[in-house]
Amino acid sequence: MTLFRTAIEQMAGYVPGEQPQAGKFIKLNTNENPYPPSPAVNLAIQRALEAGLMRYPDPTASSFRLRAADVLGVPPDWILCGNGSDDILTIVTRAFVGEGELLRLPYPSYVLYRELARIQGARFEEHRFEADWSLADSFAAPADGLRLVFLPNPNSPSGTMLPTARVAELAERLSCPLLVDEAYADFSDTHCLELVRHNPRVMVSRSLSKSYALAGLRFGFLVAQPELIQQLLKVKDSYNCDSLSIAGATAAIDDQAWLAENRRRIIASRQRLSEGLAGLGFQVVPSQANFVWCRHPDRAPRTLYEQLKAERVLVRYMDYPNWGDGLRISVGTDDQIDACLTLLRSLV
Amino acid sequence: MTLFRTAIEQMAGYVPGEQPQAGKFIKLNTNENPYPPSPAVNLAIQRALEAGLMRYPDPTASSFRLRAADVLGVPPDWILCGNGSDDILTIVTRAFVGEGELLRLPYPSYVLYRELARIQGARFEEHRFEADWSLADSFAAPADGLRLVFLPNPNSPSGTMLPTARVAELAERLSCPLLVDEAYADFSDTHCLELVRHNPRVMVSRSLSKSYALAGLRFGFLVAQPELIQQLLKVKDSYNCDSLSIAGATAAIDDQAWLAENRRRIIASRQRLSEGLAGLGFQVVPSQANFVWCRHPDRAPRTLYEQLKAERVLVRYMDYPNWGDGLRISVGTDDQIDACLTLLRSLV
Repeated sequence: MTLFRTAIEQMAGYVPGEQPQAGKFIKLNTNENPYPPSPAVNLAIQRALEAGLMRYPDPTASSFRLRAADVLGVPPDWILCGNGSDDILTIVTRAFVGEGELLRLPYPSYVLYRELARIQGARFEEHRFEADWSLADSFAAPADGLRLVFLPNPNSPSGTMLPTARVAELAERLSCPLLVDEAYADFSDTHCLELVRHNPRVMVSRSLSKSYALAGLRFGFLVAQPELIQQLLKVKDSYNCDSLSIAGATAAIDDQAWLAENRRRIIASRQRLSEGLAGLGFQVVPSQANFVWCRHPDRAPRTLYEQLKAERVLVRYMDYPNWGDGLRISVGTDDQIDACLTLLRSLV
Repeated sequence: MTLFRTAIEQMAGYVPGEQPQAGKFIKLNTNENPYPPSPAVNLAIQRALEAGLMRYPDPTASSFRLRAADVLGVPPDWILCGNGSDDILTIVTRAFVGEGELLRLPYPSYVLYRELARIQGARFEEHRFEADWSLADSFAAPADGLRLVFLPNPNSPSGTMLPTARVAELAERLSCPLLVDEAYADFSDTHCLELVRHNPRVMVSRSLSKSYALAGLRFGFLVAQPELIQQLLKVKDSYNCDSLSIAGATAAIDDQAWLAENRRRIIASRQRLSEGLAGLGFQVVPSQANFVWCRHPDRAPRTLYEQLKAERVLVRYMDYPNWGDGLRISVGTDDQIDACLTLLRSLV
């Protein structure tokens, strides 16, 4: 097969977490929300469905941008909507990074970033987190062909985050755009939205998959200054968000009371999970996200993953070459967490 | 702004047809279906909605592929699903055409193709249709860096198509892959699906936007040999189709009786539109799609477009540099067509 671009042929391809379509699992492997979304979401989708699907959707999801602008305190033309925040990451990579150019990212972090670089035929440079999950100044150092930096904050798999002031400092030193991937920021104490106002090279992406319990709907967005949004619009597919997802996402972001209550429950359950794991002897990284990263001093993570899966509890086993492996466990309901902890108690 | 890739900064960006979000228009400008989709679609989406949106969707839309495989007579692993067929065109372009390489397309045709080349930083080469809307052998001639050819069949704006045997011949001569864009093939007498079996470099894309009346849902797909599909899967976003669109699309393709009846009505109305236009002195190209391309010998198309729009009838005015302009009128209901024809009668 020599028809494809070499970059495509040579890459292995990103493999998302397991999504069993049948069978009953306690699913703690892909950071989904264990609770259903705001009831307003289903009602809005019902209404959109009754209004009909024959027409193309609004190309820029204006209804969502208007509501989100109110909630986030930015003008609507600072917002770009995507078919999930993966679509946003794809658009941004395609807009900034050409063949042979350089994308920078921390390590270990979201594995998709390097696949996006590979698809572009671009180079990527991974900077290791320090032992305390901080990033050294070298993360902002100049480099030949450097065009874009991704910073997941909170990070996956660690659930840790850099303070906003530190992100501002790194962005200031960088000569290229910085995308702060805030897929998990609704579960954290801080976020970096204010940086977008002060630095035209900072972009913040958000997802409705986790905190709004809408992984199945595919909706995410980017906040950036309008000069950037205008260029990024050229790269997105014309109708990248469908009528039902626009309606659902608009209703979701409109229900901030639901978000606050969901966030409260997830953070309480995260505490329960972290303490439970620590009580079983796991090394647990304090998390600002809706998952917890852990290792046990005496048990191989892969074995634990397999043993849990055999009992129909799915967690995420992650193995980062030259760094190490561990388990990333999503925050489920208290019952799901207790079931997971009970199994682990019998395994360690 | 020098942060972006030069290719992105320099392009103007694709502008889709007008999608007025308010006001009452007879909308004959973007080839939407005037009838609602199969009732099975809404029921399936309702069920998917009740099943919940918290979980990620099936990454490869297996339920759709299984039903489509039956309907089309190809194995499920010959099908790649996309967030509209624009997503498919994007994936294919990114997979085959690198920076500086060459994409070939006929002219005039779907304006998006060249924007996809531009986003890639690729070159594109437009081959004019002959006066009878055929394509000369040069369309299959070798060229430096040629990596991909797009052939919309039926074509837009003309509604014309090349016979399957001619497409087979061109594909045979080409050394690179040929994507036959069959967005409108459900309204035509023939299609090129059988070519995929005989030539591993032929791909066929389809859309549910037009013939299944699901423009708002965003769902399209590609049929190609599995060796190609495997590589293309690396390029698509992990969860490019959402749970509701997968459910709706599966129900839609399952209802072939609805498709047959819809097709029958559209083709009958197309005849009514073509004859009506001809009766008013328009030059009308015989159409195999759900739209008609026409010009009037004595009236400027742009003026007619504006006059119709003032009366709240939207048609598409298209102006192709170095080729010419005209009106592309989508096939609406008989009532919509009659309203449009009545207005035109007063204008010509």
